[in-house]
Amino acid sequence: MDNLELQVSIDELGERRALEIGLTPLRKGIAALVPTGDDAALVPVADGRFVITTDTMFEGSDFLLSWSSPFDLGWKAIATNAADVAAMGAEPIAFTVALGLPASEPVGWLYEFAQGLQASIDYFCPQAEVVGGDLAGSASVVISITATGHLNGRQPVLRSGAKAGDLVAVAGTLGKAAAGLSLLRHGDQQLIEAYRDFVDIQLRPQPPIAMGQVAADAGATAMLDVSDGLLLDADRVGRASKVWVDLDAVQLEGYQAILELAAQSLLQPDLSVDWTLRGGEDHALLATFPQHQPLPRGFKRIGEVRPLPDSESVGGVRLIQNGEAQTVARLGLSEALGWDSVSRAGLDLA
Amino acid sequence: MDNLELQVSIDELGERRALEIGLTPLRKGIAALVPTGDDAALVPVADGRFVITTDTMFEGSDFLLSWSSPFDLGWKAIATNAADVAAMGAEPIAFTVALGLPASEPVGWLYEFAQGLQASIDYFCPQAEVVGGDLAGSASVVISITATGHLNGRQPVLRSGAKAGDLVAVAGTLGKAAAGLSLLRHGDQQLIEAYRDFVDIQLRPQPPIAMGQVAADAGATAMLDVSDGLLLDADRVGRASKVWVDLDAVQLEGYQAILELAAQSLLQPDLSVDWTLRGGEDHALLATFPQHQPLPRGFKRIGEVRPLPDSESVGGVRLIQNGEAQTVARLGLSEALGWDSVSRAGLDLA
Repeated sequence: MDNLELQVSIDELGERRALEIGLTPLRKGIAALVPTGDDAALVPVADGRFVITTDTMFEGSDFLLSWSSPFDLGWKAIATNAADVAAMGAEPIAFTVALGLPASEPVGWLYEFAQGLQASIDYFCPQAEVVGGDLAGSASVVISITATGHLNGRQPVLRSGAKAGDLVAVAGTLGKAAAGLSLLRHGDQQLIEAYRDFVDIQLRPQPPIAMGQVAADAGATAMLDVSDGLLLDADRVGRASKVWVDLDAVQLEGYQAILELAAQSLLQPDLSVDWTLRGGEDHALLATFPQHQPLPRGFKRIGEVRPLPDSESVGGVRLIQNGEAQTVARLGLSEALGWDSVSRAGLDLA
Repeated sequence: MDNLELQVSIDELGERRALEIGLTPLRKGIAALVPTGDDAALVPVADGRFVITTDTMFEGSDFLLSWSSPFDLGWKAIATNAADVAAMGAEPIAFTVALGLPASEPVGWLYEFAQGLQASIDYFCPQAEVVGGDLAGSASVVISITATGHLNGRQPVLRSGAKAGDLVAVAGTLGKAAAGLSLLRHGDQQLIEAYRDFVDIQLRPQPPIAMGQVAADAGATAMLDVSDGLLLDADRVGRASKVWVDLDAVQLEGYQAILELAAQSLLQPDLSVDWTLRGGEDHALLATFPQHQPLPRGFKRIGEVRPLPDSESVGGVRLIQNGEAQTVARLGLSEALGWDSVSRAGLDLA
């Protein structure tokens, strides 16, 4: 690859050549049964079902180009969508990528973005691949990813299956991505370097993709990925399952302890609790498991599922602190920490 | 539905209520095996394979809100992606929709858009449904659709299968969408009303979705949907199949005749030829069929596939006029008529 050519803008280079160069980092694997260039890709799913999810990232409301490199954006786009597939107990198999990009950008932008996509696939789901996409000129950067996955004969794990008595457990990090975002917003380069691992989790999240299938095989009764904060997402499980999801404050202390020094450095020691409970974007897997069996390795117990007092209760999340169950006001729940709280505009149809 | 409520903006109404109201027009069918609200949808495909394609429409470079209503955009988003699925010989089964929209818009915008999505699905592929999506605040309107389909045991029809001796045939309209775009650009309201059917095809295309499966069952050797103009798309078939796709000017006269009055009204009588040959966005199906069998009903013969003179030729399209085969210069081919020629920025990865 001629590095000089990577500096030429997409519109100068022409569409065909820009795509030839820009997409070089993408590898073709086994998923696509037909050659690229056709109207659609063909993907095999042996058990006759596939899962599908979609998500869009807008420059400004979901990321800033001053913080995220094209590589970071490619990585994050795959990771967050793969987490949704994993949360069903499925294995990511094929992605489509729709990218809107100012045509004045150098083709190297596309090249680095594709490197990020491929590196993320290699790391999280090496059996998967990008099977199609769409590139268009756009005033700002817009990244829309659709991820598909297969269950390999498993039953999908829904949000609605938690049963009273189940254990509540989590795999992956909690609060690190929100801590990273706080550090980036604060802007002190020394602090950013001191807590580089939190900033890295914000820019290139590390969801435990393979643990989704592990949890499904271990009999998980409900699961989702923590994208909007532990309290908000646990509340979704509780309401969908018509149970209380009781989170044990003591069992969450370990997650907070990791974040305490960073919170103190920002002169807001209480932030470590907020990050843990309300921080989004770590994309940890939150799951419930039957009580009388060991949790799968990688999952840490953080609470228990309790029955509702009567049939009229809607259920949700409660925080158990000093032996008392505190219900969390709906209003407080909607205030996730993370990009959503910046833009106040991220909505989910599904 | 309280009409007053449809006038309240999305940010005023709050996310949950805006989605409840705005998505009312979407019907749930048989495709999704799990309830909405989970991280991903689950879709059955009995023959263990699915096709997938994606496309994004940007305000400004792909549509203008002064020409297209939210209903039109919903209709067009489904129609164009369903055409890509149909061009593989497949039946559309599930769509995901990622919508970026200024949150200051009334929720009625979302409601009308969802009405357009559902009306288009009802018209083109009533077995299909929207199984998931994503709504986010955005400075301008961005619509990203992913369509999936199933082959019901058929072999996919690729671009690369055309054989010397095959007949070249088309189902659907040619040039009407480009004529409609020219009329809209010209802006004369009387002309727009006089040729309302062409304008309607531009705003709400009518691709022959069901004919994709018909063509596959009839043994089509190659197929694609005409999204960038007949010459450009026929050239793609020729190059992918390593043959000449010879289009017969006489057999194309019928398509031009329909457009002649409109072209004369714009004082550019030659436009009828340009619209037919280079007009995109009708999303007609262009297919090749074995010679010694009747074409399926709905397909009209417009040419024949010829062998290349030697193994070094790359193939492509030729226009047969007065007994002479005219190869078309590559440069001329890239100039499709349609939105691409406005923005010069629409690229396809796949």
